[in-house]
Amino acid sequence: MTAQAEDFPRWYQDVVTTATLADNGPVRGTMVIRPYGYAIWERMQAELDARIKAAGAANAYFPLLIPESYLRREAQHVEGFSPELAVVTHGGGKLLEEPAVVRPTSETIINVFFAKWVQSHRDLPLLINQWANVVRWELRPRVFLRTTEFLWQEGHTAHATAGEAQSYSLQILHDVYEDFARNVLALPVVAGRKTDRERFAGADATYTIEGMMGDGKALQMGTSHELGQNFSRAFGITFQSRDGANEFAWQTSWGVSTRLVGALIMGHGDDAGLRLPPLIAPIQVVVMVVRADPEVQDQATRLGSELAGLGVRVHGDDRTDVGFGRRAVEWEVKGVPVRIELGPRDLAEGVATLVRRDREAKVQVGLSGLAERVRDLLVEIQSTLLDEAERRRRDRTFEVGDPSDVAATLSEGGFARMPWDAIRDHEAEMAAMGFTVRCLQGIDGSVPTASTEPDLVATVARAY
Amino acid sequence: MTAQAEDFPRWYQDVVTTATLADNGPVRGTMVIRPYGYAIWERMQAELDARIKAAGAANAYFPLLIPESYLRREAQHVEGFSPELAVVTHGGGKLLEEPAVVRPTSETIINVFFAKWVQSHRDLPLLINQWANVVRWELRPRVFLRTTEFLWQEGHTAHATAGEAQSYSLQILHDVYEDFARNVLALPVVAGRKTDRERFAGADATYTIEGMMGDGKALQMGTSHELGQNFSRAFGITFQSRDGANEFAWQTSWGVSTRLVGALIMGHGDDAGLRLPPLIAPIQVVVMVVRADPEVQDQATRLGSELAGLGVRVHGDDRTDVGFGRRAVEWEVKGVPVRIELGPRDLAEGVATLVRRDREAKVQVGLSGLAERVRDLLVEIQSTLLDEAERRRRDRTFEVGDPSDVAATLSEGGFARMPWDAIRDHEAEMAAMGFTVRCLQGIDGSVPTASTEPDLVATVARAY
Repeated sequence: MTAQAEDFPRWYQDVVTTATLADNGPVRGTMVIRPYGYAIWERMQAELDARIKAAGAANAYFPLLIPESYLRREAQHVEGFSPELAVVTHGGGKLLEEPAVVRPTSETIINVFFAKWVQSHRDLPLLINQWANVVRWELRPRVFLRTTEFLWQEGHTAHATAGEAQSYSLQILHDVYEDFARNVLALPVVAGRKTDRERFAGADATYTIEGMMGDGKALQMGTSHELGQNFSRAFGITFQSRDGANEFAWQTSWGVSTRLVGALIMGHGDDAGLRLPPLIAPIQVVVMVVRADPEVQDQATRLGSELAGLGVRVHGDDRTDVGFGRRAVEWEVKGVPVRIELGPRDLAEGVATLVRRDREAKVQVGLSGLAERVRDLLVEIQSTLLDEAERRRRDRTFEVGDPSDVAATLSEGGFARMPWDAIRDHEAEMAAMGFTVRCLQGIDGSVPTASTEPDLVATVARAY
Repeated sequence: MTAQAEDFPRWYQDVVTTATLADNGPVRGTMVIRPYGYAIWERMQAELDARIKAAGAANAYFPLLIPESYLRREAQHVEGFSPELAVVTHGGGKLLEEPAVVRPTSETIINVFFAKWVQSHRDLPLLINQWANVVRWELRPRVFLRTTEFLWQEGHTAHATAGEAQSYSLQILHDVYEDFARNVLALPVVAGRKTDRERFAGADATYTIEGMMGDGKALQMGTSHELGQNFSRAFGITFQSRDGANEFAWQTSWGVSTRLVGALIMGHGDDAGLRLPPLIAPIQVVVMVVRADPEVQDQATRLGSELAGLGVRVHGDDRTDVGFGRRAVEWEVKGVPVRIELGPRDLAEGVATLVRRDREAKVQVGLSGLAERVRDLLVEIQSTLLDEAERRRRDRTFEVGDPSDVAATLSEGGFARMPWDAIRDHEAEMAAMGFTVRCLQGIDGSVPTASTEPDLVATVARAY
C-alpha cells in the first residue's frame, strides 16, 4: 500500500481496493459498493435513521424519474443542476413525449406532492426523509467522495414560519449530523454557514459540517438548507394559517451520503489501512485461530459467544489453511478495532494475544474475564480515535489575518481561520488558487444564520 | 370506500389512497410511497433482511446504470427485458457514446463483477444481496402490484456445483420467502416451479410462491431462479476447482418487491380497509384519548409506556380537536390490529374499550394488567389472520380434471389444481382466456426441480 506521506490520493485508492470497500463501475464515475463497504454504510444508515426519526421525520419514497419540466420551475435550482443531469429519453422502446431526468436531488418532485398534502396549518410541520440513490454526472469522479451515482438520505420539510424552518434546519445540523460525526464516526467537525458562493442552488442559507481529513484537507460531510419560500412559491405549497390567511410554507432540505465512507477512510486511516471507530465497525473484534487445533478452536468459539453475548459484533477467523500473517494483515487493512489471536501455546498458558488497531502494539492478556475487558476496550478505542482527530484539527488550524498569507500557511494542509470581513472580497480569487471558504461561524464558534452578519470568522481550506 | 364485492380493483385503489399508502407519480406507472406505506415496507425489509443474512448472503450495492451492451450478452435475458427498458442517452449535457439502461434487474452488471471476484473454489459460494430500485416500463401499471419503478431486494449467488445452486435457490424460496409470507405476513402460499412459458428470462428453472388474494386471484409474491451456467458462460465466471480444472460457476438469483405491500392489502383487507398482521404493522396498538381530560391523558400515556416497555409498537392519539369518529375510522382504514379507547367515563369505572381490527366487536376491558393482555392478544390476532387466509385458500381451491372445466370452476375466482399432463398442451390457449399456470408441484405438494417431470400438479388461476 502506498504511504500517506508519499501520495495521499493513491493511498486512499489503495485502501478502498485492498480493504474491499468498492470497485469502479462501468459507467463513468459509478461505483460498486462491496459487502464490507456496504456493511459500514448500513451501520451509518442505522445510526442516522434513528437520529432522523428522533427528530420527528418519517421515511417515504419518491420516484427516481422526474419530468424535466419540474426542474425548471425553480430558476436557481435548474441552473445549479442542469450540467450534471442524466436524461432518460426512451422508455419501453419509444421516445418519451417529455424526457425524464434521473433525480440529482428530489426537491422538485417532492414539493409537487407537498403541494397536494399541505392544506392547513394542521398539516405542518411536514417532516419527510428518503433513503435513495441519486445521479449527478461527474467529470472528475473519486470513489465515495464524488461519484456519478451515490446513496444518501435527503430530508424535506415544510413549516408554518421562517423561524420554525430555521430552527429545524439547525436541529438537523447539530443533533443529527454533528452528533453522528462526532459521537459515532469519532470525527469532530466545524459547523457553520456556507457563503453565498457555496450555497445550495435554491436555498436562502446552507449550513454545513466540515471535517479535516488526514492530509489536512477539508471534506464537506453534510449540509442542511433553509429554502425559505423559494420552492413553496415555485410549487404552490400553501396553507391556511390559524387566522385564516393563505400562506406559502417555509422549507428545509438536508442530506448526507456515501461520501461519509470516504470521510471515515481519510479521517482515521493510516499507512496500514482503515482504522474503524468501534461504533461504526461492522466487525468490532476478530478472534483468530492461529493454527488448526480442536482445543484452540473450542476456546475461540467460546470467546466469540461470550463477546456476542455482551453485544459485541465479533467475527471468528478459523481459516487455518490461509497463512496467519496474510489473515492478520487483512483484518488490519480492514480496520477491525480489536484482534485477538489464539494459538496452542497461548492456550497452555491461559492467555491470548490482543492487538488494538489504534495502537498496533501486541499484548498478552489473560483469558479469564477477557470478553468484558474487550468490551470496555472498545469504548476506550472509540474515544482515543476521537481524541486523535481532535488533536489533529487543533494542531492544524491556524489563525490568519490576511488573505495573502493563506497559501503559505496552508502549504502543508490544514484550516485557516480569519475574519470574514478580511476575505469576503477575495473569495473568488482564493478559490482560483484552490482555497475555499468552507464555512462561516460566529466568533464564539456558533452557527450564524442568514441574517447574522457582523464579526464572522471564515474557515478556509483546500477541500475534496 | 368501494365494497370489495362491488369492484375489487376500485376497492384496492381506495384503500391505497385512504390509508395514505401511496400516490401515483408523474412519470407513467411510477408511485410515491407515503410514510405509512413506507413504514410497512421498512418492516418487511427488516424481517426479510434478517432471513437473508441468516441464509449467509451479504448486502452490497451495484450501479443503477448499466451499459446497454451488457444486457445483450445473454440472449434470452435481453429478449425478455428489452421491451421494458428505460434508456439514458444523455449525461452531463452530452450524448453518451454508449447509452445506459436503468437496471430492470442486475444479473448483467453483477456478473461482470462476479467474473472479477471469483477465481478459485475458495471464493465460492459467493452470496450477495442488494436492496435497490429497478425500472421496467409498464404499459398497464397498478400501484404496488405493477409499477414502472419498484423497490426490491435481488439476491445473486455463484456456486461450485449445480446441486449447491439448486439447493440454495430452494432454501431461499422456503426459508426466506415462504417463511416470511406465512409467519410474518400471515399469508399461506403455494410454492412450486414455474412452467417454461412463465420462467425468468435466462433461467433454467424459476421457483415461485403464489398467494391467493381476497378476490380469489393469484399474486406471484416472490421468485427464486436457478440460472444454471447461462450467465457464467455469458460473463466468463470461471473458477479453479479442487482438482485444478477450470469450470463455469452455477448461479441463482431471487427477489421480492414492494408488490408485497399489494399482497398484504389484498390478502387481508376488508370493506373497512387494511387489516395488518401485528408482526408487520408499523403501529400495533393505538391508544385513543376520547375527550380532552388530564386524567385520561395521563392514563393513556401510562398505558402507552407500559405497552412500549413490553416491546409493543404503540401510538398515542390525543388529537381531541379532531372528531372521535373520524379518528377511529382512520385507524380502522389503516388496519391497526388493536385500538384502545379511553374516555372519562371508562376511567371512572376502571375500564377501557378495546377493538380488535380482525373482528370489529367492541369489548370493555379492565385497566389492570391490560398491557400484558394486549401483548398476548397481538399473538392471537396474528394467528387468526393466518387461519382466515388458510381457510379461504382451502375453500377456494378446486380439483379439476379437464382444462375445459377451468373457466366455469373459476368463474368466481380461486385456484384450480389439475394434472400437468392434462393441461400442458393447452397452456397457451388457457392463457389467452386469462388463466395461467401459476406453478407446478409434486403430488405431495413438494417443489419439483427442472428435472422432476412425471406426475406434476398444476395450479391454475387468474393472476395479477
